[in-house]
Amino acid sequence: MKYLAAVDIGGTKITASIANQSGFMGKVYQPARKEGDVKTIPRQVKYLVDRACQEAKIDPREIDTVGVSTCSPFEIRNNNRWVVAPNLCGGLARHRENRPPNDWTGIPLEEELKGYYKSVQIENDGVSAAVAERTFGAGEGEDNMVYVTWSTGIGAGAYVDGILIKGKNGNAPHLGHIYIAENGPQCGCGNYGDMEALTSGTAIARDYGEGKSAKDVFQLYRQGDKRAVEIVKRAARNFARGLASINALLDSKVFVLGGSIMKDDDIVMPMVKEEFYRSFSSLSKDTEFRMSELEGYLGDMAGLSLIMPGEWIQKWKEHEYWKDAASALKLSIEEH
Amino acid sequence: MKYLAAVDIGGTKITASIANQSGFMGKVYQPARKEGDVKTIPRQVKYLVDRACQEAKIDPREIDTVGVSTCSPFEIRNNNRWVVAPNLCGGLARHRENRPPNDWTGIPLEEELKGYYKSVQIENDGVSAAVAERTFGAGEGEDNMVYVTWSTGIGAGAYVDGILIKGKNGNAPHLGHIYIAENGPQCGCGNYGDMEALTSGTAIARDYGEGKSAKDVFQLYRQGDKRAVEIVKRAARNFARGLASINALLDSKVFVLGGSIMKDDDIVMPMVKEEFYRSFSSLSKDTEFRMSELEGYLGDMAGLSLIMPGEWIQKWKEHEYWKDAASALKLSIEEH
Repeated sequence: MKYLAAVDIGGTKITASIANQSGFMGKVYQPARKEGDVKTIPRQVKYLVDRACQEAKIDPREIDTVGVSTCSPFEIRNNNRWVVAPNLCGGLARHRENRPPNDWTGIPLEEELKGYYKSVQIENDGVSAAVAERTFGAGEGEDNMVYVTWSTGIGAGAYVDGILIKGKNGNAPHLGHIYIAENGPQCGCGNYGDMEALTSGTAIARDYGEGKSAKDVFQLYRQGDKRAVEIVKRAARNFARGLASINALLDSKVFVLGGSIMKDDDIVMPMVKEEFYRSFSSLSKDTEFRMSELEGYLGDMAGLSLIMPGEWIQKWKEHEYWKDAASALKLSIEEH
Repeated sequence: MKYLAAVDIGGTKITASIANQSGFMGKVYQPARKEGDVKTIPRQVKYLVDRACQEAKIDPREIDTVGVSTCSPFEIRNNNRWVVAPNLCGGLARHRENRPPNDWTGIPLEEELKGYYKSVQIENDGVSAAVAERTFGAGEGEDNMVYVTWSTGIGAGAYVDGILIKGKNGNAPHLGHIYIAENGPQCGCGNYGDMEALTSGTAIARDYGEGKSAKDVFQLYRQGDKRAVEIVKRAARNFARGLASINALLDSKVFVLGGSIMKDDDIVMPMVKEEFYRSFSSLSKDTEFRMSELEGYLGDMAGLSLIMPGEWIQKWKEHEYWKDAASALKLSIEEH
């Protein structure tokens, strides 16, 4: 195979990139379409891959393998992965403020894309980022490794004994939705007191209020604002306890941490480590933390890592092609 | 191979059984020895296997394969599993009331047993029970299955995508030590607010006080004692939240539940299910609960399941030999 397509489906935008053995060739993105029938997004993915081919100056028929990193969760229907994410499916978000303007209760992503391409690999963004970090980044070669993104939400992917864990519907490990408080604020998923509800960027902003973002709260922390300090401390402690929980369950060796909150790693990491290593020592003492090495490149690399053939990998590693990815062409939502 | 030895190492006693293709042949148990050097328990295991052979009327030299189900956790030292369990190792239990009368900080179980036997398989009791339930019991053939024992403590073993998860030191999944409360009572492991500290039989008894056991508390529940009702409700709710957490991480299909608290399943299961299915529906709705089918037989079957050859399994299943296991001979601790 000469060319591969990598796709990143988020709640707000979709990106498609074309790569060959020697780097990225073309990249486009567009706001995610949320109106029409349930096949809207699969069709949009096909359209964006075609447009990325045009940027790359190759014939779209040359693409037969697509790697997709997407928001989730999934459900298996007709033996295929459907995306049942409330940030895309209005029918699943009836309790939400920013409900998508549709009544979808699922998106037949895998079966529709299989109609366009010979080989389709779909994983959620945390899982595909874990594959990328283990192949090219800070988790290289580690058999017991968990990637965690601490950002607007919490995402994760995990290898246990050298195997990427998936589970019955491909939803392992949904770290953000483990409980870490007996009671506590409500998460977007409906849970009260789960990790995302207590520690995500969204939670940090909510706890401060006054229209501040998580980024603002960290700035206030640096200015010595007492409430910001308290909120960040509680979030970091609970984040660490969430990591200790997944570590107790998977007996991991390495955590690779990324996400926007990690931009303030000088603030949070000492707190996270202190609380983490306070947990049951037989389980925590041999576990280490590393910073993501692909942060900022995962939009391409996550999906691509799911499908990259072994014979390309060594060259990609040597040249770190992700660092000179083609800059993306922004398409307006009207274009299709 | 004609004969196998199965060993069960608990905090208070050690059991050894001999089996052949057609059932159990001999079984002995003895209080666990906790004085002497770090090889005391491996030597005791060898002694008990020999004595079980005597009961079975076979030559101990016929045994070359041993399956061991043991309390844990483990640490890998010299490429072998050491048992670093505070209920056996006094050196790890300095903060405990009933500290074992020794200074061990680990037991070289695997390497010592390998000196006696050609093949040695060691897993913790939750993990080996999961193997037994998946091979012979309520989890038969399930690829995404978690066994949980709700008893004095909390134990678990898990298959994900058909593979038994182990982790870097063989400690996956230490379910009892995930956090489920921001603050909370202290666990024997040192954690504050973990699942075992909040939901175990020990926790239920501690919460009631007055020298009552967990069993007493359930009896009081049946008599309508308000405090017992409250304590059981809180424990069941938190137990369910712990299950929802491991389910979010492993995306399981089946939970197999056992342990002494499950004797009161008519009380706890409606509560557990109600709270479990209240968690993030995309992750919880396709997960089901089954009762252990090997409860009461795991002392033999857990260790044995780790080593039973494929060609024996069908016959054991058909005849359910575990149900007519030889009754065990109790040996006094003086005997060795």
